[in-house]
Amino acid sequence: MDTKKSSKQQKTLKTYRTVIVGAGPAGIGMGVALKDFGVYDFVILEKGLIGSTFLKWTTETRFLTPSFQSTQFGLLDLNAVAINTSPAYSSGKEHLSGPEYVHYLNRVVYEFQLPVHEEREVMTVVKRDRDFVLETVDAYYVAEYLIWSTGEFQFPNDRPFPGAELCIHNSRIGSYRDLLGDDFTIIGGYESGVDAALNLAMLGRETAILERGTVMDSKSQDPSVTLSFYTKQRLDETTAADGIRLEERTEVKKVTHGGNGAFRIHTGSGYYESPTPPILATGFKGGEEQIHDLFYNTGGRPQLNEWDESTRTPNLYLAGPHVMHQNVIFCFIYKFRQRFGIVAHRIATQLGMDTDAAVKLYRRHNMFLDDLSCCQEDCKC
Amino acid sequence: MDTKKSSKQQKTLKTYRTVIVGAGPAGIGMGVALKDFGVYDFVILEKGLIGSTFLKWTTETRFLTPSFQSTQFGLLDLNAVAINTSPAYSSGKEHLSGPEYVHYLNRVVYEFQLPVHEEREVMTVVKRDRDFVLETVDAYYVAEYLIWSTGEFQFPNDRPFPGAELCIHNSRIGSYRDLLGDDFTIIGGYESGVDAALNLAMLGRETAILERGTVMDSKSQDPSVTLSFYTKQRLDETTAADGIRLEERTEVKKVTHGGNGAFRIHTGSGYYESPTPPILATGFKGGEEQIHDLFYNTGGRPQLNEWDESTRTPNLYLAGPHVMHQNVIFCFIYKFRQRFGIVAHRIATQLGMDTDAAVKLYRRHNMFLDDLSCCQEDCKC
Repeated sequence: MDTKKSSKQQKTLKTYRTVIVGAGPAGIGMGVALKDFGVYDFVILEKGLIGSTFLKWTTETRFLTPSFQSTQFGLLDLNAVAINTSPAYSSGKEHLSGPEYVHYLNRVVYEFQLPVHEEREVMTVVKRDRDFVLETVDAYYVAEYLIWSTGEFQFPNDRPFPGAELCIHNSRIGSYRDLLGDDFTIIGGYESGVDAALNLAMLGRETAILERGTVMDSKSQDPSVTLSFYTKQRLDETTAADGIRLEERTEVKKVTHGGNGAFRIHTGSGYYESPTPPILATGFKGGEEQIHDLFYNTGGRPQLNEWDESTRTPNLYLAGPHVMHQNVIFCFIYKFRQRFGIVAHRIATQLGMDTDAAVKLYRRHNMFLDDLSCCQEDCKC
Repeated sequence: MDTKKSSKQQKTLKTYRTVIVGAGPAGIGMGVALKDFGVYDFVILEKGLIGSTFLKWTTETRFLTPSFQSTQFGLLDLNAVAINTSPAYSSGKEHLSGPEYVHYLNRVVYEFQLPVHEEREVMTVVKRDRDFVLETVDAYYVAEYLIWSTGEFQFPNDRPFPGAELCIHNSRIGSYRDLLGDDFTIIGGYESGVDAALNLAMLGRETAILERGTVMDSKSQDPSVTLSFYTKQRLDETTAADGIRLEERTEVKKVTHGGNGAFRIHTGSGYYESPTPPILATGFKGGEEQIHDLFYNTGGRPQLNEWDESTRTPNLYLAGPHVMHQNVIFCFIYKFRQRFGIVAHRIATQLGMDTDAAVKLYRRHNMFLDDLSCCQEDCKC
């Protein structure tokens, strides 16, 4: 018997009906939903601490969706993950910082007594007969149902073109105050690119944003594919005189070293030079990357059935911002939380629970979105 | 026959089943609700233009409640007055100005083809047998049902103490830029007082706020009785160094002329002097003042039954920010709009309509608040 094998055998074996991986908004919201639907035999495994990716946000970053104390009147806060809770109450702010949101998530865990196990990184996931086996450093977790809700933030899209390693992805910036230099180039002009430029402008720095498409022209009403009001309004208030230059329809092909320690950013028709490392605002990959072989993929998105279950692996559910159905993108909390009830309902039904009251409760609070046709219509006015 | 009588006789007589008085958010939302519940025989009489009190707002004033484009996901914009509409879409802003909101209201009137008659000031209202008779300058409107929704803004509480005529009520300020002087005193420290101080601070002026109670200490989660996040956050960001001085627990007894053209503001224990006319941020009276004899009053509020109908005058309904039940104050749009459906349902039922579908629709969109117990609970977290 070799030592490796013996160390494996020392791991404990833990069995649950359901394991949720990730204790961010999706994992915690799913945990509350499971309880609300009568499913109690589950655990939430979290690699770091509750909501810890929010602690890695750049200091200056704020939620794009406003929070407001309207919960008492039956209108759930846009950033809440559970009925009768609101991050507005704990923070007293409209646009929360990452740490303020973590405070809220911890309160939800405490209030709903959710079984979150922190610092339990899932290293591998295999399906063995009917069960999922998840390996952590000191245990095997065996479960019939697996809900994957790891978020996107820890998976930056940081290699989009050759030379990207010379750049810094915006998610890795601690604070814009820490960046040396007065003149920056940002690659990518969606939310995080414009947000970076606005924060640098507030510090008196010059920036150019190179954006493949156009930033402001989208006709869509969906904040998933257009700038949020929070950012648009800030951009309107910050004029060109404040040092933001927008270069639209400018696709970056590669980045190389230029002369004098500068960086050369090549587009189709020429190049830009930046004295500072270019900032990548190129977004994130899906959080399900670690287990991508348990899904079929369609257009870069994991294929899901109508209950957000993998079409390849029964009893594997996806929760969070990477859920997508037809043209409906669930990338904000107020969107993806509406699928927690669907998943919980499906599992509870399979376990023989009576879910009528829970469905009614969730539906009443706009937390049970089973008719996706609604989400493709525009407003009347 | 004297000329007065003859001019009276020339007035036309118009008969409707229902008349709504006021084409602000409450009147327009009530109009949509009546149609949704199958009641078509009505007219909305507006003294000025649609939403015109919003055009009288001080230029710098913004909505306290944020708008957001979440309507497609079944979450009604906090400032919307009708299902499937959102002021966020037309303005592209989170905190709308008065004119931006008027633009939205006009779009709702157009989209729902509401019969709004502008520039029809109601001078008198009498109840004659079963009918209400409303007199305007050139017509009598006769209706079985009357919905009073005139808002508060045009009724400033501008005589709260002796000498108040030396002051200027904040609702009468066109723009803070127009005020001459560098040193201001504001009487009243709730939303509009702090908002005035913040706007003056942005123009580099000094202000003192004299507030009877305390501004920041309220333990309530209800924005009706505590500062909104929008204001709180702005106040947090604007330090004392920016020239705002808060004098709490300071009740003003009277205002007199001081020396050198200054104003003397007397409190219980002494006085303050202001080189500029004190600004009154003392709020508003109820919009139902004109017909107060058609209501019984309780504690300064018109007494209403469970359908927001006057307990004194059958078929007279109140809509808007002055509706109050027990301890529930309906002073924000996202609150009072939840009563439109209740009133429409009541009238439609009396007219023999089948309202099941409409009630279901309104309930699904949090627009049918018939259980007020919900609104007195606090959030879990």
